[in-house]
Amino acid sequence: MNKLVSIAALTLAMSVAGIAVAEQLKPEEQIQTRQAGYSFMSWNMGKIKANLEGEFSQPQVAAAANAIAGIANSGMGALYGPGTDKDIGDVKTRVKPELFTEQEKVGEVARNFIQAANNMAEVAAMAESPEDVKSAFGKLGESCKGCHDEFRKD
Amino acid sequence: MNKLVSIAALTLAMSVAGIAVAEQLKPEEQIQTRQAGYSFMSWNMGKIKANLEGEFSQPQVAAAANAIAGIANSGMGALYGPGTDKDIGDVKTRVKPELFTEQEKVGEVARNFIQAANNMAEVAAMAESPEDVKSAFGKLGESCKGCHDEFRKD
Repeated sequence: MNKLVSIAALTLAMSVAGIAVAEQLKPEEQIQTRQAGYSFMSWNMGKIKANLEGEFSQPQVAAAANAIAGIANSGMGALYGPGTDKDIGDVKTRVKPELFTEQEKVGEVARNFIQAANNMAEVAAMAESPEDVKSAFGKLGESCKGCHDEFRKD
Repeated sequence: MNKLVSIAALTLAMSVAGIAVAEQLKPEEQIQTRQAGYSFMSWNMGKIKANLEGEFSQPQVAAAANAIAGIANSGMGALYGPGTDKDIGDVKTRVKPELFTEQEKVGEVARNFIQAANNMAEVAAMAESPEDVKSAFGKLGESCKGCHDEFRKD
């Protein structure tokens, strides 16, 4: 198994890696698929934010948190395979090359993100008011930013 | 609330709709976000398929099934708002206009999909062999096809 795949999978995806099919996706497909995951999580983060700022629907917040946690735990590390560290034709990526070399730091931000996503889902499942989820949501947002600051351009 | 949004949300998203933020996303953003969700689910369907055809990893199958179920239950109906029934500039959609008018049929395929996704996640959590998930995976694939055949072009 390619070292880059194994590092990204083991760190970003923790123990549940998508390695089995990583080689089946072309590098450009890996970039597009990981971006799809982040886009969908972003939409759900926005829904939670809207619930905290407006009318609070626990089922909607819980559903959004479950979607984020499901994606976070899906083994996205397998989408950072060889050749996905730079633009491929029209398929652009904002990833920094450091993501493919700084194994320890990548593992740290990945663990923080997955733990924050799982915690958010657990808290949202029991939430009765916005106050019940604000802390977990804040920590989740910080865990996103933790990776963006280190490994995303701009 | 717009009727199209409410129909799509109530049917495609069942009781958990993303209505609160539907109006915050532009129509083109709604199309891109729903396509992101389908793309990410497709990747996870492929991982499950690879596990059934090759080496079986229950944690990977369960993680993929949870990602699909999380997305399926996230209220994607809110991403079928007004103006999202046709291409918007470079943002193309394969949705058929019938999805916005055939409320009863849309509700049926949406319920079938969400139930199949939830069943797949439940079965995958307990699976010990490929045989344990083949039926649930087959039903999930059929529920995807059920909507594609009715409401997706080509």
